[in-house]
Amino acid sequence: MPGSPPRPRHLHLNAFLMNAGHHDAAWRHPRTTPERVTDLTYFQELARTAERGLLDSVFLADGLALWGNARHNALGGFEPLTLLSALAVATERIGLIATVSTTFNEPFTTARAFASLDHLSGGRAGWNIVTSGTVDEARNFGRDEHLEHGLRYERAREFVDVTVKLWDSWADDAIVLDRAGGVYADTDKVRPIDHRGTRFRVRGPLNVPRSPQGHPLLVQAGSSEDGKEFAARYAEAVFTAQQTLSDAQAFYKDLKGRAARHGRAEDDLRILPGICPVLGSTEAEARALEQELTDLQVPEYGLAQLSGMLGTDLTGLPLDGPLPELPAEHDINGNRSRFALVAELARRDGLTLRELIARLGGGRGHRVVAGTAEQIADQLQEWFAQGAADGFNIMPPYLPGGLDHFVDQVVPILQARGLFRTEYTGRTLREHYGLPRPAAATDPAPEAAAPAGGKA
Amino acid sequence: MPGSPPRPRHLHLNAFLMNAGHHDAAWRHPRTTPERVTDLTYFQELARTAERGLLDSVFLADGLALWGNARHNALGGFEPLTLLSALAVATERIGLIATVSTTFNEPFTTARAFASLDHLSGGRAGWNIVTSGTVDEARNFGRDEHLEHGLRYERAREFVDVTVKLWDSWADDAIVLDRAGGVYADTDKVRPIDHRGTRFRVRGPLNVPRSPQGHPLLVQAGSSEDGKEFAARYAEAVFTAQQTLSDAQAFYKDLKGRAARHGRAEDDLRILPGICPVLGSTEAEARALEQELTDLQVPEYGLAQLSGMLGTDLTGLPLDGPLPELPAEHDINGNRSRFALVAELARRDGLTLRELIARLGGGRGHRVVAGTAEQIADQLQEWFAQGAADGFNIMPPYLPGGLDHFVDQVVPILQARGLFRTEYTGRTLREHYGLPRPAAATDPAPEAAAPAGGKA
Repeated sequence: MPGSPPRPRHLHLNAFLMNAGHHDAAWRHPRTTPERVTDLTYFQELARTAERGLLDSVFLADGLALWGNARHNALGGFEPLTLLSALAVATERIGLIATVSTTFNEPFTTARAFASLDHLSGGRAGWNIVTSGTVDEARNFGRDEHLEHGLRYERAREFVDVTVKLWDSWADDAIVLDRAGGVYADTDKVRPIDHRGTRFRVRGPLNVPRSPQGHPLLVQAGSSEDGKEFAARYAEAVFTAQQTLSDAQAFYKDLKGRAARHGRAEDDLRILPGICPVLGSTEAEARALEQELTDLQVPEYGLAQLSGMLGTDLTGLPLDGPLPELPAEHDINGNRSRFALVAELARRDGLTLRELIARLGGGRGHRVVAGTAEQIADQLQEWFAQGAADGFNIMPPYLPGGLDHFVDQVVPILQARGLFRTEYTGRTLREHYGLPRPAAATDPAPEAAAPAGGKA
Repeated sequence: MPGSPPRPRHLHLNAFLMNAGHHDAAWRHPRTTPERVTDLTYFQELARTAERGLLDSVFLADGLALWGNARHNALGGFEPLTLLSALAVATERIGLIATVSTTFNEPFTTARAFASLDHLSGGRAGWNIVTSGTVDEARNFGRDEHLEHGLRYERAREFVDVTVKLWDSWADDAIVLDRAGGVYADTDKVRPIDHRGTRFRVRGPLNVPRSPQGHPLLVQAGSSEDGKEFAARYAEAVFTAQQTLSDAQAFYKDLKGRAARHGRAEDDLRILPGICPVLGSTEAEARALEQELTDLQVPEYGLAQLSGMLGTDLTGLPLDGPLPELPAEHDINGNRSRFALVAELARRDGLTLRELIARLGGGRGHRVVAGTAEQIADQLQEWFAQGAADGFNIMPPYLPGGLDHFVDQVVPILQARGLFRTEYTGRTLREHYGLPRPAAATDPAPEAAAPAGGKA
């Protein structure tokens, strides 16, 4: 969209860090170093690369059970909050987004950990809110079966409500620090929240002063019906898997519309589809790399992953045959939106199991684009300009090289086109995403009856 | 004890980091910087100072509610695991001990976070196991009353059992990394734990490979009857508050004896009494500093803290009068050993409330010693030589200066006397404490029938 708007719209880029890379065979490729996936310095280097590229944030997914079969993939296993706390020290500007489940944690603990990360990073913390999708996770927390999809989201809503109240339980100006008078905090501005809900009773206040961002950024990634309603109400950034421009446009429009129905502005919510960019100096080179990775796939692993995504045991089925009959979407109690996406992909393109496993190897349902830096930039620009994205969740197929190439080759093109920042102008994750710092509910104090939006 | 034993016994020193310092009026003293208690760089500097002094570890206490009244003390509020993860990057050798409660957490989450900290710090993680002592904490987790003391310890025992099993669920040699063959881990060596106990059902395995120390160090700090039994069975390092040499000797002998009854060697357990060293270049200067801090105390704060420790509301009682009748120890459901210590201190020395508040200001019941570096070193040596301590939990009355002075003035005296290391010889926290790395239960595999102790 050429022209000279007063403030050009910039896209937002997140680096989704994943062990040896997002392709499920990345750890077997000679360009990766799977022996380093439990080595902090490896992740420090990745985060610094993303920061060198001026990206908005790095992000860590998470699950509370072994993720897939350790036999055939390099699972690292760093816990996101500890790892990002360490990465905070190795970086200065980039945002740090950790996944934490509302199904297997407590609001007080979660509110505290993110407030702590926000303080220690100088306002760079973000929380990717997940409800956890697998029975393997439930079994690590005393349950035989997984909590039903709708109930998980019910719990998630109250969980986030409580967490936000805890973050707001200290006013921004609660700390007085009057040494002579012996008053550290004005305790009229440090208030219990006295939450008594259906699932949680939490007295508060939090035992951490309000953090630099007020609220660490709320991020969400589920795109089911429940997930979209949740995102529309709470999320400030949304990661989503979309295979085609038209699907992404429909999702974008749907979610922004829902946000409006929750009384929010469309611009309060950033939507970032995932993309796995397979880069080459020519398109042929990129396609050859993609083929190399496909050739390294362990079909047994892919079949197990696919069985999980489809809620259907595919073991023993012929790889060159079609998919069996699948359950209905509403019978899926795991990641429901991913089920729908994969089922549709297989149906639309008439894929065999082997072809589907190959197609999913790079991004587990996220879009994979193989091409030159120019071609990747074109794709990003098209989606950004055509109402499909506010930015992208960058999922390099292999690491560290896949991120290096994105930063060194694609980012400069986006900058030259005026689509991406050429320096950090903000200090906090909220500032990078262009989102305001929330005023604390307790500030101004209720009795002050300040005009709406009166907080400076 | 002069002479030339084959391997001299060295004492172990832990730096207990606490906001503006351990004295409850430290934040009002001109030598402190209470505006920095939510500033990561402040804690980085403290940790680096402790490492410069070659100390074994730094330690963070914790509670899951506001700790005392924020009106009259500089409460920082960093969550220990996030803060120590950040400190891991700022240091290279020193151990990192975080407090986490077994009452308000889940074993899977706790096992994972400590394994993650252990990986990212290269084997420097320790877990101070607490059962949480206050109803304020219970009320942040959906409960009206606090779980009873004995039940808390029952839960703690099973919690630690599960955590250790999870740490051992990956054999040390589980990762094969056979890229050509497509095998990352030998899944015969990554095993579910299938724990089905009274309070927890956890399937496992953990989703983190076995960490550098095998088990992060297990630390404990409760000295009640329940606490001592727990420590004797599980703890590898014990922090304890002891006011007199004879009390400390009795505690030391008792605990080592109990450990033996649990089938452990006396040397498997390090006992570190707390000491708050008030240093001056002369004894008079040290006493003057102590008096300065006492003069800055806010009696209202001290009275509230004392009410908490004694399980008795003291509000409104005359400060210059005696203590009221106290409940029996077995009726205390909080920190039972601290209750006993404080009640005994008041009784023994016939203290008024004001005097007791002054006496507790420096160490909340831990021993306070004011004197020159030489005098402090003498005290440490005496307790170490006389069977009262394997080392000490150093609690500087104010920070950062109190830690600087300990490191720069007391440590060199201990080194000159051959009582303390002159360089780090180990890499891990276990190595600093002279404790072995535990073999994994799953390694060697049961079918291998290796001789006992056969693991290299």
